[in-house]
Amino acid sequence: MEDILIKSSTNSYKISIGESLRLQIKQFLNKEYSSVLIVTDEHVAALYLNDILENLPTDRVFQSIVPAGEKSKNLQSYYQLQTEAIEFGLDRQSLIIALGGGVVGDLAGFVAATYMRGIDYIQMPTTILAHDSSVGGKVAINHELGKNLIGNFYPPEAVIYDVDTLHSLSEREVRSGYAELIKEALIANENFFNTLLTVDIYNVSNRELQEHLQQGIKIKAAIVEADERELGVRKYLNLGHTLGHALEAELGYGTLTHGEAVAIGLLFSIHVSEDLFSVELPFEELLEWFRTNQYPIIGTNLDISALINKMKTDKKTLKSRIQMVLLEDVAKPVAKELDDTEIEHYLTSFESRLMAK
Amino acid sequence: MEDILIKSSTNSYKISIGESLRLQIKQFLNKEYSSVLIVTDEHVAALYLNDILENLPTDRVFQSIVPAGEKSKNLQSYYQLQTEAIEFGLDRQSLIIALGGGVVGDLAGFVAATYMRGIDYIQMPTTILAHDSSVGGKVAINHELGKNLIGNFYPPEAVIYDVDTLHSLSEREVRSGYAELIKEALIANENFFNTLLTVDIYNVSNRELQEHLQQGIKIKAAIVEADERELGVRKYLNLGHTLGHALEAELGYGTLTHGEAVAIGLLFSIHVSEDLFSVELPFEELLEWFRTNQYPIIGTNLDISALINKMKTDKKTLKSRIQMVLLEDVAKPVAKELDDTEIEHYLTSFESRLMAK
Repeated sequence: MEDILIKSSTNSYKISIGESLRLQIKQFLNKEYSSVLIVTDEHVAALYLNDILENLPTDRVFQSIVPAGEKSKNLQSYYQLQTEAIEFGLDRQSLIIALGGGVVGDLAGFVAATYMRGIDYIQMPTTILAHDSSVGGKVAINHELGKNLIGNFYPPEAVIYDVDTLHSLSEREVRSGYAELIKEALIANENFFNTLLTVDIYNVSNRELQEHLQQGIKIKAAIVEADERELGVRKYLNLGHTLGHALEAELGYGTLTHGEAVAIGLLFSIHVSEDLFSVELPFEELLEWFRTNQYPIIGTNLDISALINKMKTDKKTLKSRIQMVLLEDVAKPVAKELDDTEIEHYLTSFESRLMAK
Repeated sequence: MEDILIKSSTNSYKISIGESLRLQIKQFLNKEYSSVLIVTDEHVAALYLNDILENLPTDRVFQSIVPAGEKSKNLQSYYQLQTEAIEFGLDRQSLIIALGGGVVGDLAGFVAATYMRGIDYIQMPTTILAHDSSVGGKVAINHELGKNLIGNFYPPEAVIYDVDTLHSLSEREVRSGYAELIKEALIANENFFNTLLTVDIYNVSNRELQEHLQQGIKIKAAIVEADERELGVRKYLNLGHTLGHALEAELGYGTLTHGEAVAIGLLFSIHVSEDLFSVELPFEELLEWFRTNQYPIIGTNLDISALINKMKTDKKTLKSRIQMVLLEDVAKPVAKELDDTEIEHYLTSFESRLMAK
């Protein structure tokens, strides 16, 4: 097991990564809680819920199971969980455990952040992708008009990452998670990026996977500590996300996984960067790696004006100009505002470039 | 104009109390905002919205007007305001101004706290009652199962209290506000309490009113600074609120004003305290004062078991026992857990006591 310590403005919490941690949940509880609510989805519940239930030291344990998938990150599920928390009798000395992927983590975290104005919660991510969302205290639900538009900065008490739970992931989920690892590498660590480009993501060993997660989390942790409330460098973590979020919203959440959408967004950011900064970046290598690893790189038949509208409701948008994170080089991110016409131009040339390959 | 400075864990903000402040709104903005959304209700909009609009230094000013009354503090209004904020193009450098009473302040504050994970907001209270809710950073909406169950601790950038706007209050609103002033006096300042018992609340001068607000706010401010997240002394501010909230919920929000319900709750707390601590407290004097000032002291025909159920969903409830704030003496509050049977006993004897008067 490896621990990574994160200092937030209001608390410090540990990210513990290792095997069988779900069976040792007891040792991660720093105080006595009056009751515990485990929030999870139907898929994860079938696999791991009992492991947690059997290892908690209190008998006031409740469970709320939401449907799997991004659609649960909406206002209705949020309110339903609040209702259940009230009906179970959770009070301010209660704990919420978010057991699942990013959807469960963001949703249950936002419930914890706002239930009776905030109670403790613990993240137990069960996907590779959630290494990203479970670190940094961002919690949120989606608005019909855009992803993550409603939420808080609300750090967890702990993040418990049991790598055993990653064996049950589908290929789509593995792809989705590795896209965020690629993103972190692109922002901050060229060696890590080059290592990832040699990886066959469906055949990594447990040890390699743990190593990749640690690298990714360390990059994220350093950025989050430097800029908890996204006033500066934290925005670099949105590399690939301006177009990524717009694609997810435009195609309907769930059509592409988050990471699959980000993968396309990363290529687009590199495409724009190469032109704007007249630099050579690993566009071709990354595109090839994505295709080898079966990422659906949809770059044709996009409704460009609809995408631009979606990009404008991104939280990083200032005064209705689109802000993108670009790369002056690998590991040299920079934020830049672009006009609609520039974005339109680049989306068109991006489409042509992908079609030519 | 008088300023009271409040230090929170994340910022410091000033409460400014004086005349014509709404016309000087410009001087209270500490930075340049990309846009401003004024949230207010239909009644306040008709009276004061133009004053604010005309005195803001930016042309990107938007307004969202909610129906007046507690019913707007629900999930639907909350989501509607989020939608409008997105459609107006508010970004993270935008400001929300909550212009109105406690409902508008709590609702707009919670929107600000959770819009894109938190943007700046300013409270401009237009009721006496809101002197309480606008100080301390508590923001919330109601759940069908209880008041203020969904919310955050999220301090404003400033509180601007223009006493001119208090002239237009109805008698019900004046009563409602003075009940919270009585509560603050009971918690912390016997002289202030004795002063208030001499006041005819419908005939106070502007100067007296300003003095009462300052006294109340100073009591609240001292408590909030000592205990921002309600782990200790802040709970004393809930004197009268355990039964008060339950009455509001049980009778239907709006049947009694918040302060009218708290007035009954204060009497009940004193009633319980006298018996539990064998002390003599000013129950009779306060009851007489409430009746002289036309408070509806409803203490008969209560559905006691329904009230007890409501009291259990209060945020102060620990492990399903009801926690009440009581008084060992005036200005000596204490928190205590009571069993259902004790509560039932006291509600019954409270009813008899009120009927006998």
